[in-house]
Amino acid sequence: MKRLDIFGALKKDMDVIEKELYRSIEGDDQQLTETSLHLLKAGGKRLRPVFVLMGGKFGNYDIDKLKYIAVPLELIHSASLVHDDVIDDADMRRGKPTVKSKWDNRIAMYTGDYIYGKALTLTTNLNNPEIHRILSKAMVEMSIGEMEQIRDFFNCNQDVRRYLLRIRRKTSMLIAVSCQLGAMAAEADRVVSSSMYRFGYNVGMAFQIQDDLLDLCGTEKQIGKPPGSDMRQGNITLPVIYALQEPELGQRLLKEIERIHALNGQCDVSEAVGMIRSSTGIARSEVLADRYIRKAIDALDSLPDIKTKKQLKDIAHFVTKRSY
Amino acid sequence: MKRLDIFGALKKDMDVIEKELYRSIEGDDQQLTETSLHLLKAGGKRLRPVFVLMGGKFGNYDIDKLKYIAVPLELIHSASLVHDDVIDDADMRRGKPTVKSKWDNRIAMYTGDYIYGKALTLTTNLNNPEIHRILSKAMVEMSIGEMEQIRDFFNCNQDVRRYLLRIRRKTSMLIAVSCQLGAMAAEADRVVSSSMYRFGYNVGMAFQIQDDLLDLCGTEKQIGKPPGSDMRQGNITLPVIYALQEPELGQRLLKEIERIHALNGQCDVSEAVGMIRSSTGIARSEVLADRYIRKAIDALDSLPDIKTKKQLKDIAHFVTKRSY
Repeated sequence: MKRLDIFGALKKDMDVIEKELYRSIEGDDQQLTETSLHLLKAGGKRLRPVFVLMGGKFGNYDIDKLKYIAVPLELIHSASLVHDDVIDDADMRRGKPTVKSKWDNRIAMYTGDYIYGKALTLTTNLNNPEIHRILSKAMVEMSIGEMEQIRDFFNCNQDVRRYLLRIRRKTSMLIAVSCQLGAMAAEADRVVSSSMYRFGYNVGMAFQIQDDLLDLCGTEKQIGKPPGSDMRQGNITLPVIYALQEPELGQRLLKEIERIHALNGQCDVSEAVGMIRSSTGIARSEVLADRYIRKAIDALDSLPDIKTKKQLKDIAHFVTKRSY
Repeated sequence: MKRLDIFGALKKDMDVIEKELYRSIEGDDQQLTETSLHLLKAGGKRLRPVFVLMGGKFGNYDIDKLKYIAVPLELIHSASLVHDDVIDDADMRRGKPTVKSKWDNRIAMYTGDYIYGKALTLTTNLNNPEIHRILSKAMVEMSIGEMEQIRDFFNCNQDVRRYLLRIRRKTSMLIAVSCQLGAMAAEADRVVSSSMYRFGYNVGMAFQIQDDLLDLCGTEKQIGKPPGSDMRQGNITLPVIYALQEPELGQRLLKEIERIHALNGQCDVSEAVGMIRSSTGIARSEVLADRYIRKAIDALDSLPDIKTKKQLKDIAHFVTKRSY
């Protein structure tokens, strides 16, 4: 999925967010400012801020309020990525060297802590304790999701439900909360903010499934890192779980994953990737992603018919537009 | 410094805090609950909660409010410790195995993130945005302090000022904020909360200097880990900076530190520790710690004469009571 550049109307405000993002992590410490800036400049789709602003369109849209949600959400997402990279021992992300590879693990860890702190400092500009509560709970859920991911590394016995629960915590929740808090900060109707939550949750699920598909089916240029990274790391994603369910191929794949596990992922994984690509796992995962997108679009039904509603639909479709 | 058990009057409420601490980290994830509990049960002096409660005594003392400051502050402190242990590659803390040694670095990292999130969730029970602001800023400062510490590892060119700035961020600020927020949450006078801040800040400085002295002069039993850990790690503390200023001994010590650095701390450090102990660095550090204690006690001058004031003086003196 490419950067979201489909929102002409939001463009100006997203420029504000981009500037605020950079400003937010400036501080006394040159090293932390530099590593944080490196992380933010590596880019990303800014999906969470976009959703915050779009959520805001259903209420009293005020960029000067919404930025205190949008920027922290992107910061929290970024902080989780930098901690992820330490865990994953990742050298590249989005086609750029990671903080942990350009500097080191220790710097990556404190960069994450620093960015979390900066995110929370910004949110204190809003006097709504419920927003803080939702945000901090999402942080807790995210760390649980990350932990579950570690625990399930190379676990070939997990079922689809376990995978879905994990990505719910790891990814969807923060996207759901972005949609919800945008509406809440704009004092939109409670029905609206909970519909937005449901929209974000389902888009987030589809988005993560799609991302996991891309890691198997995309090119290095598309992904920004070598394909099969999840496999090397032992991250058993949805297409893998489905592929493992196939009687003959499943057995061969299991053996191959065990070999990769034994070598701690320090080996060629193209055979395993090839098996999964030739399995029904890809198509079945696509079906599930599409089902989440449909649910996301359904969640929009109760929303007033403003232009943003159409744009949200567009994003939903965009998330599962396959380029591989 | 031993556990603070000098406060009969506060004992009952500290039991409440202790229970709330354990309850606060319970959650859906067994692993994270277990590692967090391990961390909290390893103990500690609970200095920050004690100061919160004592700060509260100068206003409308209400344990049901104060706990939402006291527990998060201890949690933030604990989260920073578990992240520290990853950086320091520490196997022992307070005489118990660290999370990173009992489990692994990845688990330690997410345990820290989880506890930070839980801490912030708890504070949302209080509807005072200024408290959130102060707390999140303290978190940012702490991560800067930690980063400065990494950067200054094995840096023998640093002066006393640099050391003091670093421990201010790393330690004193959170203790200062504990004292201040306790008073603020109890709606004490602003003069009181800023005096409490100054008290905490100065006690915190003395406390860290004392802790650094203990690492050089204490026994393994007193410290809970082998003496000279700071030296092995390259953490150049106040007594070392002073010792390096001595003409002849300073030169020998510099060479020894360079040797330890070259071996990445994987060596016997007793010679360096011996040199520092025989230098004027110990006595000069003690003088500075005592000066901070005096400043802490001066900060109490403007406070009303309640029993807590006397107890705060007792703690201040207790901090620099030397057992080595």
